Amino acid sequence: MNELLIKDGLIIPVADGARVLRNKSIIIAGNRISEIGPTTELLARYPQAHILDASHHAVLPGIVNAHTHVVPTILLRGLTEDHLDSFYGVSLPMKEAITPETVYTVSKLGCAEMIAAGSTCISEIWHHMEQTARAVDDAGLRGVLAHKVKEVDLGQVLKGQYEFDTREGEERLAANVELVKKWHRGAGERITCRIGPHAADTCSPELLKKARAAADDLGVGIHINVAQSPEEVSRINDLTGKGSVEFLADLGFLDDKVLAAHLVYISDSEIEILKESGSYMAHCPGVMARRVRFAPVGKIYGAGVRVALGNGWMNMDPWDNMRMAIAGARITTGDVDVLSPYQVLRMATSSAAEALGLGNEIGSLEPGKKADIILIDMASPHFYPHHERFDLIATLVYNATGNDVSTVIVDGKILMEDRELISLDLEEVMHEAETASQRLWRRVVREKKS
Amino acid sequence: MNELLIKDGLIIPVADGARVLRNKSIIIAGNRISEIGPTTELLARYPQAHILDASHHAVLPGIVNAHTHVVPTILLRGLTEDHLDSFYGVSLPMKEAITPETVYTVSKLGCAEMIAAGSTCISEIWHHMEQTARAVDDAGLRGVLAHKVKEVDLGQVLKGQYEFDTREGEERLAANVELVKKWHRGAGERITCRIGPHAADTCSPELLKKARAAADDLGVGIHINVAQSPEEVSRINDLTGKGSVEFLADLGFLDDKVLAAHLVYISDSEIEILKESGSYMAHCPGVMARRVRFAPVGKIYGAGVRVALGNGWMNMDPWDNMRMAIAGARITTGDVDVLSPYQVLRMATSSAAEALGLGNEIGSLEPGKKADIILIDMASPHFYPHHERFDLIATLVYNATGNDVSTVIVDGKILMEDRELISLDLEEVMHEAETASQRLWRRVVREKKS
Repeated sequence: MNELLIKDGLIIPVADGARVLRNKSIIIAGNRISEIGPTTELLARYPQAHILDASHHAVLPGIVNAHTHVVPTILLRGLTEDHLDSFYGVSLPMKEAITPETVYTVSKLGCAEMIAAGSTCISEIWHHMEQTARAVDDAGLRGVLAHKVKEVDLGQVLKGQYEFDTREGEERLAANVELVKKWHRGAGERITCRIGPHAADTCSPELLKKARAAADDLGVGIHINVAQSPEEVSRINDLTGKGSVEFLADLGFLDDKVLAAHLVYISDSEIEILKESGSYMAHCPGVMARRVRFAPVGKIYGAGVRVALGNGWMNMDPWDNMRMAIAGARITTGDVDVLSPYQVLRMATSSAAEALGLGNEIGSLEPGKKADIILIDMASPHFYPHHERFDLIATLVYNATGNDVSTVIVDGKILMEDRELISLDLEEVMHEAETASQRLWRRVVREKKS
Repeated sequence: MNELLIKDGLIIPVADGARVLRNKSIIIAGNRISEIGPTTELLARYPQAHILDASHHAVLPGIVNAHTHVVPTILLRGLTEDHLDSFYGVSLPMKEAITPETVYTVSKLGCAEMIAAGSTCISEIWHHMEQTARAVDDAGLRGVLAHKVKEVDLGQVLKGQYEFDTREGEERLAANVELVKKWHRGAGERITCRIGPHAADTCSPELLKKARAAADDLGVGIHINVAQSPEEVSRINDLTGKGSVEFLADLGFLDDKVLAAHLVYISDSEIEILKESGSYMAHCPGVMARRVRFAPVGKIYGAGVRVALGNGWMNMDPWDNMRMAIAGARITTGDVDVLSPYQVLRMATSSAAEALGLGNEIGSLEPGKKADIILIDMASPHFYPHHERFDLIATLVYNATGNDVSTVIVDGKILMEDRELISLDLEEVMHEAETASQRLWRRVVREKKS
């Protein structure tokens, strides 16, 4: 197979060295970046290469979206974004009624939406995860997948009631282990898996220990929500007198295999514990802003915790999320210097890749890495001016939206070119998801009435 | 001239009655909406109408952007977004060096960017405003323009030093009066003007009174920044023992002709004073988030103050701004119910029109109003599902970006169709602005060195 040559463009490698490369091109051989060098030289040396012209485009590593829930986001879009009670009131019956086939259908739309906005890797935790694995495989996307492991009713938890169903916990953990056995390093290594205990309060300490042991046995990482809600924090405090992070650390749960999402209700001393543990943070400012509180990301990042950016549910545009991360950091610290656009871009690419255990494979544009690359069309008024003396990265982070992403490459394959989705039939995917969502909604409404 | 018929679409009138109209069409005769009715009926009655097919599109009133600074936003893009000190350090010499022709050139790009993101009316305050008026006229946009009137050096103010230059104040006010005389109700009534005293601290009380009197004489409104910065509030407090709002109210400055921008540092008792005065708020959450503090918009709106949304400088996407408004309101109140997507959409359309004195003319889709209308392409994955039972407005506000706007009509004329800008040559406008910005930057850097 011939090489792919991404010609010119404003290359932002998100790696050591220059922040922006000009008059350079990228050679992709198979599924990896083999070389980045002067355009004239590479054109001469690779006369047979397929050329992708990136003039007037920025060329970046694909966004690595460290915390996603594409299926519930789409199913609940326009329904219950604002209210956790109606979220659980609607989402729980919908989740009960949902069929594996609907999860597959909606996952495909989620993959399409992610690709179209520039995310080349998602980190998804929900139910029927084997169906999402199929969709990620079909879409050509990269995914880090975990099954949601918990043993309480989330609707009850919202009322402060915790009745543990040990069998549910066992079954969910077993399903997660099955997922890992079937899909870890699957789809040509595009899919890896993790163990996904839902939260410190929705799993018993025993289940948390079993989840941790299962991850160690299988040699995979862990994805867990930590200090996400007032309910969680007050529950853990009632039981142990500790904060969630302290509790998990004392349980021997935290290390550098753990990605802890949210961390909204975390104390200063716990930030130190988290830092010592080596665990990563998945910061989701977009969703948490709507839930009335930003995580203290300025302090957490400032303490040296490695932070990845994720969308959570409700909006999947990673660029919107970067701006919300900057706003959140400044609002919570009162410091305008606390997060720069470049630091936030790293959280959304190279740091997120590290947090997901893929730091050697993706997250930056460097020879040897997998070719997960996005092109952003700079010929739009909101990117002007962008001449050489100016901070192109600030201009991108402050002004880009998902729709500015024109071309997406994952694992060396072009999934979208000039905003034309190639790996999925978008019309069909949108239509199927609309139909499945309507059907599910009718069933839930009918059941509620009966 | 034949009528324009916007056929079908999901019509969101932002007026009394149904939030979403289906199977209806809009008739535009000349520059006004003449009728909204069932598609089949209107097609039969207007067989000669030019048809704009809005199937799979949402149809909304154009965004009324109540506080904009397109010229400095573009000139400083990628330069000094993050830092007020460097903002003034760079922006002041740039402002001194800028030529009227450059303001015209950059204003055209600003108009292009606004149209492309769905803003059909801007409310601009800066220097050489007659040049921006020319650009608004050429672009076919609607504009409410004010000259920046102040009599201190803003770089000095940042250091807490206030040396008033009475002559500067007089000259600037005279230029503003000239602007009103020349451009108010100009460009086929697309342009109106206001008097634009910069802030309570950067004009002396005498100048504020003169500005107020000039506005009354001319029969136009006033646009002013209020309680925007800690410097302003501490200056006014040192001089009078009052907050900025209280000070302005006691001066007899505030009434329903006044649009007060920002209101970040406003006390609870001042919110009542503002409410009593009838003055409007221009809320700019995007810019203020980066300046480390959200205005208490939840409280201000909750108290009954009429709130309009504006972008300020740094990002001109009105959709991003709506999301930041929701986040800011929830973060500052801790209340998830404080601002709904529909309330925020009203702030960005009908309420902003009222705040600018154009409530009878624009801001909603109703027969008799001027035809300022945008179409949003819903055939994108991030808008699915959007079937009938769902809250289309929540889906739009939480997921739309400027690039989703496909067609823009102002004053009955199509300015952009299927994302193709018609009223301006976009390539030329971007190129000219890039060149002008480079030239200005070089001159400023050279002067700094010499």
